[in-house]
Amino acid sequence: MKMWFFEKHNENYQVAWRISDILYQKKTPYQNLTVVEFAELGRALVLDEAVQTTEKEEYVYHEMLVHPAAFTHNSPRTALIIGGGDGGTLREVLKHKSIERVDLVEIDEEVIKASQEYLPFLSQSFSDPRVNVIIEDGIQYVKNIKNTYDLIFVDASDPIGPAVVLYSEEFYRSLFSALKDDGIVSVQSESPNFYPEIFTKIVTTLQGIFPLVNVALAPVPAYISGFFAFTIASKQYNPREITPKIDFSLKYYNEEIHQACFALPNFIKELLKSAKF
Amino acid sequence: MKMWFFEKHNENYQVAWRISDILYQKKTPYQNLTVVEFAELGRALVLDEAVQTTEKEEYVYHEMLVHPAAFTHNSPRTALIIGGGDGGTLREVLKHKSIERVDLVEIDEEVIKASQEYLPFLSQSFSDPRVNVIIEDGIQYVKNIKNTYDLIFVDASDPIGPAVVLYSEEFYRSLFSALKDDGIVSVQSESPNFYPEIFTKIVTTLQGIFPLVNVALAPVPAYISGFFAFTIASKQYNPREITPKIDFSLKYYNEEIHQACFALPNFIKELLKSAKF
Repeated sequence: MKMWFFEKHNENYQVAWRISDILYQKKTPYQNLTVVEFAELGRALVLDEAVQTTEKEEYVYHEMLVHPAAFTHNSPRTALIIGGGDGGTLREVLKHKSIERVDLVEIDEEVIKASQEYLPFLSQSFSDPRVNVIIEDGIQYVKNIKNTYDLIFVDASDPIGPAVVLYSEEFYRSLFSALKDDGIVSVQSESPNFYPEIFTKIVTTLQGIFPLVNVALAPVPAYISGFFAFTIASKQYNPREITPKIDFSLKYYNEEIHQACFALPNFIKELLKSAKF
Repeated sequence: MKMWFFEKHNENYQVAWRISDILYQKKTPYQNLTVVEFAELGRALVLDEAVQTTEKEEYVYHEMLVHPAAFTHNSPRTALIIGGGDGGTLREVLKHKSIERVDLVEIDEEVIKASQEYLPFLSQSFSDPRVNVIIEDGIQYVKNIKNTYDLIFVDASDPIGPAVVLYSEEFYRSLFSALKDDGIVSVQSESPNFYPEIFTKIVTTLQGIFPLVNVALAPVPAYISGFFAFTIASKQYNPREITPKIDFSLKYYNEEIHQACFALPNFIKELLKSAKF
């Protein structure tokens, strides 16, 4: 029997991946969690009908969420990850040797457990002594934190369900306060091609709060076609002015990509120019 | 009744677009040709079950096939388009004011007729006096041409069906001979993510013939997820060393994109490094 997973991106567009095996299913207090094996993409985490991350190409998303921001900081020592319970962002952050502590705040501990059991290529870094896992709502957690982090990564799922508040102005203001005076936040910012409103809202809201806001682009095959965006909001360092000194091995990001990822096609420049904030 | 078009990219991955209307269907001597209206992407040309071009985002493909190569040439006067019967590539080539003549060699004249009837946003340029349409097999046509063109664009469908020979070494050698001493060819080169063998074969075969070969990348939403590649093979001018002077309006390509599109992620560098030619 051939089984297919259909991800409905909207009423008019869906993508289907053939399933080789269903490894785990659980209804958590927050979402429906499934771990499957896709014939094309390997093992994958699916939350509420949306593919979150896949074995074959998770590196694109995790490298691009982390490294353009992390290399822009002079010498990051403390980092916060909001969400990211699968561990992929954590794995990339810990590659930076200056990092002394990473706090990972995940609302749904079942995501971490499932990743540790079924997705070791993502969850391998939870045992690192620099890691501090906090099971809590990220919104509540950052409210009480001031002037603490060099880097913050918002590794949330799509802005529906539990993650919707992770796209609000109030939350972004909390992130600003939680960062040190030269801190940087990197926020997954959806598809400018298919969700231009969400993308534009994230970028322009951050532009109202941070002095330096740049958009990095990369296509992520398991998400949606076209570009996927990452917004890098910085208090002091400009990502477009640095040349990363990369001292570990990566599958996507490199020096040239660091420069190239910030070049925006005209249609994206137009989207941002016509937006109000 | 909801109608969906499923494009099977391989045995394990397919994409579905909802159809609002079927405008035209014809079995030509070469392929099954359909013009539909997709709810998400507008009017679209479908050949043998593969989406060729769509109203909403055809500009990404056509601008990226044409402009990185065309701006690299000092002052192109003559151009050849192999395939491209929909007219989109023609439209972009004619934006370059130095162009005096474009020969478009299309094997299937039904593609041109359908585009003229149903896809005017693509076919608007066929009436330009600089255009010379030749209904012939592109392979046969270029065999007899020497030292004639400044620019050649290979705007072929996927390497199955009638277009398969448009990916052979012999054909690329004919293109080299058909170009002037400072000529440039731009070849659509499929997806490095999902068809790494085809992509690598095109690039490495061209590397065996032309002194300067570069890969330009852009995601094309209606094709397949991840990157889509364009190989630019040049006899004299290096696309990475020029700054385009753009004097017309575009939706994707700009000065920054010209530099950025040649930056290759590590996985693509690895693909090309490990390939033999």
